[in-house]
Amino acid sequence: MNNEKQTVGAVIAAAGSSRRMNGADKVFAELAGKPVLAYILDVFQNCEVIDRIVLVLSERNIEQGKQLAKACSKVIDICPGGERRQDSVIAGLSGLEGCEWVVISDGARPLVTAELIEQGLEAARETGAAIAAVPVTDTIKLADESMLVQGTPLRSNLWAVQTPQIFRFDIIRKAYRNCKYEVTDDAGAVEAVGGKVKLYNGSYDNIKITTPDDIALAEILLRKRK
Amino acid sequence: MNNEKQTVGAVIAAAGSSRRMNGADKVFAELAGKPVLAYILDVFQNCEVIDRIVLVLSERNIEQGKQLAKACSKVIDICPGGERRQDSVIAGLSGLEGCEWVVISDGARPLVTAELIEQGLEAARETGAAIAAVPVTDTIKLADESMLVQGTPLRSNLWAVQTPQIFRFDIIRKAYRNCKYEVTDDAGAVEAVGGKVKLYNGSYDNIKITTPDDIALAEILLRKRK
Repeated sequence: MNNEKQTVGAVIAAAGSSRRMNGADKVFAELAGKPVLAYILDVFQNCEVIDRIVLVLSERNIEQGKQLAKACSKVIDICPGGERRQDSVIAGLSGLEGCEWVVISDGARPLVTAELIEQGLEAARETGAAIAAVPVTDTIKLADESMLVQGTPLRSNLWAVQTPQIFRFDIIRKAYRNCKYEVTDDAGAVEAVGGKVKLYNGSYDNIKITTPDDIALAEILLRKRK
Repeated sequence: MNNEKQTVGAVIAAAGSSRRMNGADKVFAELAGKPVLAYILDVFQNCEVIDRIVLVLSERNIEQGKQLAKACSKVIDICPGGERRQDSVIAGLSGLEGCEWVVISDGARPLVTAELIEQGLEAARETGAAIAAVPVTDTIKLADESMLVQGTPLRSNLWAVQTPQIFRFDIIRKAYRNCKYEVTDDAGAVEAVGGKVKLYNGSYDNIKITTPDDIALAEILLRKRK
């Protein structure tokens, strides 16, 4: 950032389905006594560089989200998400007009930290787009529909993407306006319109909750922090 | 397999380093009261399709391995590994001359099952090579050395590779004899000489132990089985 303080908004994308959670909703699942989403709201509320937060939730969770966000003065809007993840993010962005920067974060990554947010903003200075990622540890294969291997990309060039993903507001808004197809992360929309995206080092602890096993793992990781 | 019983050997590759285990050795780390390696030996010993087992260990662990393998009648050799993973597998293969098939398995995947071994042998019938894999759930980026994103391969074509990896003995032996460079999995050697490799469905529970957190996660997954 330059010396003049630029406004930084956050979109917390928490409207995803929870197909693998055995009926529970992952963002409100209990993690060591608190809902998953409460951890994320705490981190963003207490992160100095964040000025405003828009929380995107499934329609059915809006009321519960309002209760949870009561203590968070930075939350300026709680809005319903769309069908695809990117529709939810686009909905969230519309609440952040006037911000120079936006930090997009999954509502199901309760171990995000203020450091990851701050490092991401720093990394995004170069090209206007930076995403947290960790080196891939598995061997990855490209395969066709009949599950026949087509190739093994060199593992040292592969990164597993996380959130936060940080963008200059005009870059991500323009990218999504021009994005014709479904993307699996926000940076994908920027890449699709020719934008340059930098990776920065995320954390293996910054897991995404998708199954009840992940809740148990997150509790182990939280205990390790103490 | 055809009606005539073909001999199936197993290489358990357990000679890897344990850099991220805080000084512990991952294959002898305690998991719910037993060493990690004991789970794998149990599964292979009790899997009906397996005839012989060669266990590959670091030189310093050979004695401890002998104690652990005492109860396993199928273990015909315990041999020291080499510098790279593939050197260890090659050492193990040399103890399985005469087998028609070989099942190669990581010594650090304690949640392997007899079903995964049997399904792999079945899948390998088509091309002589099959490997367990699961669909990648993260978005994966290709990046250059400066961590600038070069592309986002379509996630639906990407698989994270596990073990078991199953091969016709002559295919994997010939592949490794001709393999000029380092590979991150055994199938990579077969691909490098133009062999066809099939994927079959592994399991998200079939995790590889690389950190103490993985031990804690494996204990959760073991409890879930009961």
